[in-house]
Amino acid sequence: MAKSGVTAPKGYKASGVACGLKKNGNPDLAMVVSDKTAAAAGIFTANVVKGHSLKWTREKIKSGMARAIVINSGCANACLGERGDKDAALMAALAADVIGCETDLVLLGSTGVIGFPLDMDKIRAGIGEAYKLLSCEGGNLAARAIMTTDTYPKEASKTLSIGGRTVTIGGMAKGSGMIHPNMATMISVITTDAAITQTLLEKALKTVADSSFNRISIDGDTSVCDQVVAFANGMAGNDIIDKEGPEYDMFMSALLEVSASLAKMLARDGEGATKLIEIRVSNCRDRESARLILNAIAKSPLVKTAMFGGDANWGRIITAAGYSGAEFDPDKLDIFLGDLQVCKNGTGLLFDEAKAAEILKEDEIVISLDFKDGSVSDRMWTCDLSLDYVRINGSYRS
Amino acid sequence: MAKSGVTAPKGYKASGVACGLKKNGNPDLAMVVSDKTAAAAGIFTANVVKGHSLKWTREKIKSGMARAIVINSGCANACLGERGDKDAALMAALAADVIGCETDLVLLGSTGVIGFPLDMDKIRAGIGEAYKLLSCEGGNLAARAIMTTDTYPKEASKTLSIGGRTVTIGGMAKGSGMIHPNMATMISVITTDAAITQTLLEKALKTVADSSFNRISIDGDTSVCDQVVAFANGMAGNDIIDKEGPEYDMFMSALLEVSASLAKMLARDGEGATKLIEIRVSNCRDRESARLILNAIAKSPLVKTAMFGGDANWGRIITAAGYSGAEFDPDKLDIFLGDLQVCKNGTGLLFDEAKAAEILKEDEIVISLDFKDGSVSDRMWTCDLSLDYVRINGSYRS
Repeated sequence: MAKSGVTAPKGYKASGVACGLKKNGNPDLAMVVSDKTAAAAGIFTANVVKGHSLKWTREKIKSGMARAIVINSGCANACLGERGDKDAALMAALAADVIGCETDLVLLGSTGVIGFPLDMDKIRAGIGEAYKLLSCEGGNLAARAIMTTDTYPKEASKTLSIGGRTVTIGGMAKGSGMIHPNMATMISVITTDAAITQTLLEKALKTVADSSFNRISIDGDTSVCDQVVAFANGMAGNDIIDKEGPEYDMFMSALLEVSASLAKMLARDGEGATKLIEIRVSNCRDRESARLILNAIAKSPLVKTAMFGGDANWGRIITAAGYSGAEFDPDKLDIFLGDLQVCKNGTGLLFDEAKAAEILKEDEIVISLDFKDGSVSDRMWTCDLSLDYVRINGSYRS
Repeated sequence: MAKSGVTAPKGYKASGVACGLKKNGNPDLAMVVSDKTAAAAGIFTANVVKGHSLKWTREKIKSGMARAIVINSGCANACLGERGDKDAALMAALAADVIGCETDLVLLGSTGVIGFPLDMDKIRAGIGEAYKLLSCEGGNLAARAIMTTDTYPKEASKTLSIGGRTVTIGGMAKGSGMIHPNMATMISVITTDAAITQTLLEKALKTVADSSFNRISIDGDTSVCDQVVAFANGMAGNDIIDKEGPEYDMFMSALLEVSASLAKMLARDGEGATKLIEIRVSNCRDRESARLILNAIAKSPLVKTAMFGGDANWGRIITAAGYSGAEFDPDKLDIFLGDLQVCKNGTGLLFDEAKAAEILKEDEIVISLDFKDGSVSDRMWTCDLSLDYVRINGSYRS
């Protein structure tokens, strides 16, 4: 196995094991540990309801430091009252005990069904086993253990040079259903060996998330357990990045590359997805209009089923833009499927249906809208809505 | 055939014909004519993009009067530039010519695929034929001719006594996909023989729509062609309702009964729907919170697929409430499926799964949420999201 994902940077070990939370025996507990206490930052769900493991992490990360994160799949540890909070604290304590660090330095993540308690005997055994299996090549195993309905593990990494030192940023993510801007059932862990202050790590993560993790939509639902957590342990040995400038920009640009790469993998692997859809808007009046329009199109079940069926029904695209809440002049709007223009100045064109069918057969489709109404451009990723989405979600608990 | 739907009240004739706009040869042009010029009021889509036929109606109804409405299915007459406006004007003129009234007194509706022009030869022939077939028993034929992916025609009527006179309110509606608050591809025509001022007719229609047509969701998409139009021709001979008071309240209550009945039929006949879902919220903090929560749950593909699969996955319900944008205390929330409580004070209960399965097998499911946070109650109707929804919408144009 190679060093990949969260174990691509120096000084990180990871593992993934099956502790029995998933009925089908698939891996369901991941551990990522930094050799040294790292600067840590996180972004958390905007949902009013919050899972107990997530609440633990959100609280502990306020110190700006962490050593490890333990994530289980198969159970969300959410909506369980005091018991959920106690289980989260115990899960952290069990991990801290084997790792040999303070409990407050262990972050948590849980994803799965809501309303069922964690089986703490299984968690205890899983943590023990995961600790034994920790390895510098364990990134892929960890990425596998956090999957729920994902069909493949999602990892990315990027190397850059800062002040003559090789710096690496790695990451893993899980998602699939319920993914939507503001952190759906998406969990991602980013690791780097860069030396960077906690303040700048947090700033970079937030900036980057807005054009990566918060720019994907599967079904418009946002979950109670979603988080992106970043660790920076400084082991690359670069001079610490402690102010904005060229080094910070280079770091942020690499972080964006890793994050956008993970985000696109999440959209492509949306539940039942057969196609990745990139929606681009240009010359919008303002940023909020662009965001509203992207959101409405990316969430529209009618647009998404048309893409599944390979149907060039652009009327559904203009319809979604129209009800998005954004103001625009429909008589200026141009729409393209791939490079084929289907609507000019709000009026349908007699386009080549055969060519449209070709474009919609691809497994990556770009939908572009030009509003000729301003200067803001933006983009978002989503997937089609297929028969399998309904099959998967009609019986998730069973 | 009986007097039903729009022809239930005195002085209305209707008809429906197949003029060839639909490839499958189904009826696609409906005409409703009042014997006398009637007071008229309408509610129109909130979509920024508006169909040309709808724009005609929205403009002409400003006079507060109308004689007739002509509605075609099979073509939305939308996004066609000047041509769409010209075709709408011609369609009204053709109908006015056969009816023998001013063109400005003919309202229009069009529903179907966006971006393809109306075939005016077919429309011309269809209007001629529809006029010949007008009858006091034609309500059902009209209701059939406005259908798109609807599986059955939707009609309702209600009789009441005002000042010793029998007053009738009738209506028809079409919908199915794309229905969502603020008038999705929903077209409804309400007729009454009540004598009521235009101002009060409009006020009653708007009030009633907010708890009927604007309380249903199929897929969260709102279309460019949606409208509810009401006619009141005064032929019941009651003293005109010209102020708010007991008569107005009785009228509005009957109008609500007709509208809510049509709205529920629309939700139950959502594309591919196998179940009608009623979502009730109680003791919400304020009206806006209640609306946001109902909307989020009714639109959630995860809730809707769970209902399709008969899966008591209430975690998806609390999740949707949580991301709705409404503020509430999750630790106070109770959730019920039918009369089975599944969540108490935000914490999952060990409920009887067999009983839950029974409840979710019914073709009408009530989901109730008690927020214990205020005094506002509200409700909304939607349907489940099935495999057939995707099948239908993956190839609607073809």
